Amino acid sequence: MTDPKKEPLTYIIDFEPIGRRVEITPGESLLEAAHSAGVELVSICGGKGSCDGCRVRIMSGKLSSPMPGEESVLTPMELEEGYRLACQAKPLTDVKVDVPPESLATTQRLQVEGQGVIVVGKSIISPVDLVLEPASLIDLRSDAARLRDALQIEGFASVSFSPDVLFNLSDILRRQNWRVRAALRGDRVMAVLPEDARILGLAVDVGTTKVAAYLLDLESGDVQAVRGAMNPQISYGEDVISRIVYCNENEDGRETLQDNVVATLNGMIAEMCGEADVSSQQIVEAVIVGNTAMHHLLAGLPVRQLATAPYVPAVGEALDLPAGEIELDINPGALIHLPPNIAGFIGADHVSTVLSTDVWQAKKTVIALDIGTNTEITLAVGGRMLCCSCASGPAFEGAHIRDGMRAAPGAIERVQIKNGQPNIYTIGEKPPVGICGSGILDAVAELLKDGIIDHRGSFQEGAPNVREGMSTQHKEFLLVPSKDTGHGKDIVVTRADVNEIQLAKGAIRAGLEILLEEGGIVAGDIDEFIIAGAFGTYLDVGSAITVGMFPELPRERFRQVGNAAGTGAQQMLISTERRRVADEIPEHVEYVELTTHAGFEKAFMKAMFLEF
Amino acid sequence: MTDPKKEPLTYIIDFEPIGRRVEITPGESLLEAAHSAGVELVSICGGKGSCDGCRVRIMSGKLSSPMPGEESVLTPMELEEGYRLACQAKPLTDVKVDVPPESLATTQRLQVEGQGVIVVGKSIISPVDLVLEPASLIDLRSDAARLRDALQIEGFASVSFSPDVLFNLSDILRRQNWRVRAALRGDRVMAVLPEDARILGLAVDVGTTKVAAYLLDLESGDVQAVRGAMNPQISYGEDVISRIVYCNENEDGRETLQDNVVATLNGMIAEMCGEADVSSQQIVEAVIVGNTAMHHLLAGLPVRQLATAPYVPAVGEALDLPAGEIELDINPGALIHLPPNIAGFIGADHVSTVLSTDVWQAKKTVIALDIGTNTEITLAVGGRMLCCSCASGPAFEGAHIRDGMRAAPGAIERVQIKNGQPNIYTIGEKPPVGICGSGILDAVAELLKDGIIDHRGSFQEGAPNVREGMSTQHKEFLLVPSKDTGHGKDIVVTRADVNEIQLAKGAIRAGLEILLEEGGIVAGDIDEFIIAGAFGTYLDVGSAITVGMFPELPRERFRQVGNAAGTGAQQMLISTERRRVADEIPEHVEYVELTTHAGFEKAFMKAMFLEF
Repeated sequence: MTDPKKEPLTYIIDFEPIGRRVEITPGESLLEAAHSAGVELVSICGGKGSCDGCRVRIMSGKLSSPMPGEESVLTPMELEEGYRLACQAKPLTDVKVDVPPESLATTQRLQVEGQGVIVVGKSIISPVDLVLEPASLIDLRSDAARLRDALQIEGFASVSFSPDVLFNLSDILRRQNWRVRAALRGDRVMAVLPEDARILGLAVDVGTTKVAAYLLDLESGDVQAVRGAMNPQISYGEDVISRIVYCNENEDGRETLQDNVVATLNGMIAEMCGEADVSSQQIVEAVIVGNTAMHHLLAGLPVRQLATAPYVPAVGEALDLPAGEIELDINPGALIHLPPNIAGFIGADHVSTVLSTDVWQAKKTVIALDIGTNTEITLAVGGRMLCCSCASGPAFEGAHIRDGMRAAPGAIERVQIKNGQPNIYTIGEKPPVGICGSGILDAVAELLKDGIIDHRGSFQEGAPNVREGMSTQHKEFLLVPSKDTGHGKDIVVTRADVNEIQLAKGAIRAGLEILLEEGGIVAGDIDEFIIAGAFGTYLDVGSAITVGMFPELPRERFRQVGNAAGTGAQQMLISTERRRVADEIPEHVEYVELTTHAGFEKAFMKAMFLEF
Repeated sequence: MTDPKKEPLTYIIDFEPIGRRVEITPGESLLEAAHSAGVELVSICGGKGSCDGCRVRIMSGKLSSPMPGEESVLTPMELEEGYRLACQAKPLTDVKVDVPPESLATTQRLQVEGQGVIVVGKSIISPVDLVLEPASLIDLRSDAARLRDALQIEGFASVSFSPDVLFNLSDILRRQNWRVRAALRGDRVMAVLPEDARILGLAVDVGTTKVAAYLLDLESGDVQAVRGAMNPQISYGEDVISRIVYCNENEDGRETLQDNVVATLNGMIAEMCGEADVSSQQIVEAVIVGNTAMHHLLAGLPVRQLATAPYVPAVGEALDLPAGEIELDINPGALIHLPPNIAGFIGADHVSTVLSTDVWQAKKTVIALDIGTNTEITLAVGGRMLCCSCASGPAFEGAHIRDGMRAAPGAIERVQIKNGQPNIYTIGEKPPVGICGSGILDAVAELLKDGIIDHRGSFQEGAPNVREGMSTQHKEFLLVPSKDTGHGKDIVVTRADVNEIQLAKGAIRAGLEILLEEGGIVAGDIDEFIIAGAFGTYLDVGSAITVGMFPELPRERFRQVGNAAGTGAQQMLISTERRRVADEIPEHVEYVELTTHAGFEKAFMKAMFLEF
């Protein structure tokens, strides 16, 4: 017999990849849970189970059995794969749910904008227009020899062919009546296209959380289309370590994660090609950057050794992979250039940032910072480049924060507090349902300035809007009362939330201090302080200084550059010279390993304090 | 209502790839048909349908419905794919049957022997034994950089990596405790193996009918194992043109034929590796030769243009394909070297023959001949090489001959006729069931010598054992009466058979004469006459001279060299220098197109006569 007293009072429901967690009472449906969490699902039929708008996939946990409505809307294979209608399915345990993009009524804000790029030096790909002599009984050259001879006349003395060019050459020559455009990378023919086809390239930044993709015209360097998406690997682990653990524990793990991200990229490619009205066959070159783990998972490289000391990459140097090797839907003759990694936790994405922010050729003293679950920092000083990686954790992605969420509509992104009275701004000006990274950073800074917390992060007795935590022994600050929120529940900042921000900012500041020490300078010597990445774009520099994450410098020395990694990928896509620079960056960087650095522990303890 | 008079009296059953045709009366089973045809199927249960020994696959035609016995022995998928038990299935129409090798009680004779090879010059692959420094917190180089540095110490200044090396490097380094053997091709690392692994290579000759494969030790050049098999593409067409038509008419045709031959190669590789007690991962290089169509089908190149004028290859030059590209089960980092083709109907297999027979460096006047469905001939004279392809047809494979069959046990391979009394020899000394290529050539020569046919191929009235054809208006010669055969039926040589031999030998002799004319010499000037290939090995040179296929030369000038194409493939597998020679052979060959040659028609008409 089941003791009713032992029945849990609530279940915890996690919505991925949006990163929203909510507690529900038994009997509530997943759609109700989503509503409570501020996750707006498509619901055309109004929750009657007769449309598939609220289709979601269960990652873990148990649900009520499928209802007849679900069995008529979903295929047996979809049910087998864990798809359910959120309006019909009721959790019987804690549940983790994957929400496909098409089921989300509003989309998440994805940082894809960076600075523009211009072609520097020679283009990676040269298009060559050719009119070939047709084959005849008095001219029996093979199709490849015919193409080779025509290119020789155009000044390409000794070309080689991508195998996929040869697989399709005979057909395209005859279909195009022997008039074609060849795309060459140096002396290698990468693709043969119809004579009027534009030559395109793909630049991608694969982040642990988000993916940004850019479709470029390789001759002009103009961006034709841009897309942002969530990294679907989030369903297998929020951070890189948990994804590597997934790979170690599942035989097909590496393949699953690779297939997953490639499928997302292929979807983005199809959308961008549709928008630009081009064929994906016209994409004859790609550059993809990511941190070392994303790089390895995309390329199909082993990751086990990345998660155990001494955390070395399988490959540091730049790689050119045939597109077919990872089944990326671009011209099969194309190569995917993967720029070099610096270390196990400093990947090609940071190389790309160092490239696009011109840190590599800085004459002044410059800091460049990529804030994420890992924060990579490079200091350029006196002709040297010093670099480290800080384990800043996912707090700035909204994770591990009581009411945290990613930067989606309804997320509180700005907070002001005066005399204990908060004033908030939400993304999309929607009723608030949670707090994203820039919001929680603001909140902690404002609580500190307003004297509601002290520099240790402790709430002050009797401060306005401070109360005992509902489910914890600690105090919390009421940021928005339930009557003013989108889901009818209080939004609060807890002592634990403040602590998460202390850990995150402490890691970043400690890394900064160690680099300054190694560079033999102090914070005031920094001429330029570059902040890259999505959170880096939206954070309030004043708040970051208030909590002591960044040093106190004149405000004009800070520069928020958006997706600098994506910008660097675009530069490497179109410019031979920039690609060469990037290939050499790791050789010029002195990597500083923080975990074994004598001064790190002390610096970290000190940096945990909230300074104001 | 069916008019019983209209019911056909017989059905024609074709057994492939053995190439045996038989007529049966309605009601006979496929097993009985096979027996009549002299095709010995495995039949453990004695035809009761309770074992799967006589499993065959139906290519075309209709059979009786599957019996319960078949449904219990064969899987639903096998039945779906056309598999049946020969003892249970009864033809309802003419039927074409594919007999899998495992269902054949006796195996076909496959020519794999050639001359031995020795390493000339530098080996293609260099093994390098390495002991690497383990990764540690004070030595954070990536695994690839670590390998690169160790190779630099061994004198390899600037190596590159096959992508598949990088995919497996981290795991093998740690599993082998940092002691490994790298296999390098020039400056490229093709594979990383355990420290004591032998470095192996694969040489293959893919013929239209037969496949020969050789497993070699790349250091010593010693052959470790050899296998012969039928080319399974025969089920889709006996000659190259019908296979190309199959590809043109079926969307997945090219892929089907490629998968087919690769599956056969993978089976041979597995068997050879088992015999030599090695892993297929140790095979780090392969050379595959074949005619241009076999080459294109294997590589996945388009073949449509090979079957229409002007019959140009997609690719003439040598290719290096990654093993993974065609899913060949060898080390995934290995490259498959495909030597160059000369023309649409003169492929890399003939280049390989020209290489291994030393025709490329001949000082004397030499003819080298690869006899097959197409016969390639090269004449070396006065520092020139002239080359042509003759459409000799499949008669010497036993096809289009009334009682023809391939060189399997029970095939008549030698014939003597004195005063109209034949004397025969069969392969394996089995009771005769048909005539193979060398037997039919002998028979025609002996009939001519004995005065039973004249030089036009017509049977002489009243000659012994000559009778009116049973089902034709023409005469035929009774070679073996039914009481002495393995299947209880007469074996005969018909007027049509003689005509097929006239067409075949006429094509070859005409090609020869044109080459001699182009070379400005006469037949008597030939110092050496090299005959390559399986039929070339077994044919009786005297008979070939008798019918006028070969010119009358002193017998010691003829040299039968076995599978010279296979021997050449082995040479190219182990020797850098020989591979370079082969790559350049097409540039030194003058291709003579017979179909547009002014003198060909006349030469062919003349060569059709049987000269004695």
